[in-house]
Amino acid sequence: MTVAAPQRVAIIGAGAVGSYYGARLAEAGHDVRFLLRHDFDAVSARGLRVVSPLGDVHLTRPAVFRESRDIGPVDWVICALKATSLREAATLVAPCMGGSTRILALMNGLGVEERLAEHFGRRAIFGGMAFTCINRGEPGVVHHLDYGSVTVAHLDDDPDELRRATALWAGSKVEVAAAESLLRARWEKLCWNIPFNGLCVSAGGITTADVLADDALRAAARAVMDEVVAAANADLRASGQPAGLDADAVARSMFDRTATMGAYRPSTAIDFAEGRPMEWNAIFGEPLRRARSLGVPTPYLALLTAQLAALNRYLEGGV
Amino acid sequence: MTVAAPQRVAIIGAGAVGSYYGARLAEAGHDVRFLLRHDFDAVSARGLRVVSPLGDVHLTRPAVFRESRDIGPVDWVICALKATSLREAATLVAPCMGGSTRILALMNGLGVEERLAEHFGRRAIFGGMAFTCINRGEPGVVHHLDYGSVTVAHLDDDPDELRRATALWAGSKVEVAAAESLLRARWEKLCWNIPFNGLCVSAGGITTADVLADDALRAAARAVMDEVVAAANADLRASGQPAGLDADAVARSMFDRTATMGAYRPSTAIDFAEGRPMEWNAIFGEPLRRARSLGVPTPYLALLTAQLAALNRYLEGGV
Repeated sequence: MTVAAPQRVAIIGAGAVGSYYGARLAEAGHDVRFLLRHDFDAVSARGLRVVSPLGDVHLTRPAVFRESRDIGPVDWVICALKATSLREAATLVAPCMGGSTRILALMNGLGVEERLAEHFGRRAIFGGMAFTCINRGEPGVVHHLDYGSVTVAHLDDDPDELRRATALWAGSKVEVAAAESLLRARWEKLCWNIPFNGLCVSAGGITTADVLADDALRAAARAVMDEVVAAANADLRASGQPAGLDADAVARSMFDRTATMGAYRPSTAIDFAEGRPMEWNAIFGEPLRRARSLGVPTPYLALLTAQLAALNRYLEGGV
Repeated sequence: MTVAAPQRVAIIGAGAVGSYYGARLAEAGHDVRFLLRHDFDAVSARGLRVVSPLGDVHLTRPAVFRESRDIGPVDWVICALKATSLREAATLVAPCMGGSTRILALMNGLGVEERLAEHFGRRAIFGGMAFTCINRGEPGVVHHLDYGSVTVAHLDDDPDELRRATALWAGSKVEVAAAESLLRARWEKLCWNIPFNGLCVSAGGITTADVLADDALRAAARAVMDEVVAAANADLRASGQPAGLDADAVARSMFDRTATMGAYRPSTAIDFAEGRPMEWNAIFGEPLRRARSLGVPTPYLALLTAQLAALNRYLEGGV
């Protein structure tokens, strides 16, 4: 395994996902700098702890910052904000940009990379899709529950840039897969996120195991997934790429993977249960808009999206 | 207007709906006897009060009972139990049955009359569909929010029996319509109950006004309604009756009616918000089973049913 030259990395949005991957990069010897808001005091005092089947990590004195400008220019920005904070992303990322800084958007949903590219150029932008179960514990503690790789892709699907992204993770405990098509990789992630986040929330904050155990919810998950596959293939064709997602193969893979997760509560369901705004627009709203503009029938997706939007307004006190 | 001869009436299940219609019959001079459980003490002490745009009613000393056997045989049983209590219905109704007693099931959902007929014979059974907004206030107080008729029908669609049912309400402030087909009237009620109860619950306990104000939820309501219309027509044809429900006409009527309701919270959404079991099986489960057995595609109904069932298990602590 090739070990990458130490890189300076800023973690913008050090929630569960950002903290986990930042800790893994620090463990591998990189100079990792965490932007923290709520958890700044806790992490300053007690460090950052990852509990994981791949081995725990305890960074006793991580480099933590309250402001991006104190982090300064870095080699890599890992933007792990919630999609609900996308509007702030450019402001938070900008102070960390140097002449050759690259940005990996480790976020959910469609359209995130395009939004970042409006500020920092397409060449600098990568997307990351984490197929893992990571939850927050108490402040400064992250629980990594399930193995799983991170898929990275370049916004313009540039192979040289892509190698640069995978090289960052060489020597770390994070298994990274390179995707030739960002659009396809984003949609593949949505094939899981839309049915499982959507149903776990709209059926009352249940877990993925509850969805799998109920015949009707399981059938609904499959039906939504089929719609997402159809929308993905139409979007890929529209962008001149081969369609290629096979509904049966996707379903087999997603359901098998989910069966290993146990009673997992997707991030959106945790947000719902804890009364925080959900990432409904990135995960549901934008995919639904694309499906509609492509003429793909998506009755289940439309209903889930409407429900999530209404639940989100309810959480925001707007109803 | 013909005033009916005073009848002895037992109200089995004196929640908001039973209390309201019982009070209107008492106001019209009938001998009305209320079976009460939770609210017995409150109603004994303070009476039963109806607040209504048609005129308030205050029964200062209503005839209230804790046990059906103390009510004894009556001319009419109005069974206004929640559909979730359907299993108890026969036990609660039986002590009130005399030689010519008739039963009006003022309940939600499909299949209620058939279940009662198993115990009391088909000739005795009527269904009642209340198109009104009635909510509970404090114990012993009922709020009638919106005008609206009650539709009655006989289980075997017998016209002589049907006249007997409408005669009961003559001289009362309740506007009663006679339906020639119980099956059709039940399905027409479901054309409202399924979309509006279903969406108000699964979008977080919102009101009918919230559904109408949101384009996506409104579209979802229409889509579910179209499925219910299709299932209704198939069920009517299968039972040898003319199909006859027109999706556009039903939608126009239901949406117009709903627009007059303001911020109304359907009973199922109130149950959900207050953590009580919901009538999901009668309103969603049984219609879905019929639609499936008739081969009618109902993707929205299937998803709503799965969500309501899961939410109901959640309320019952089963998840």
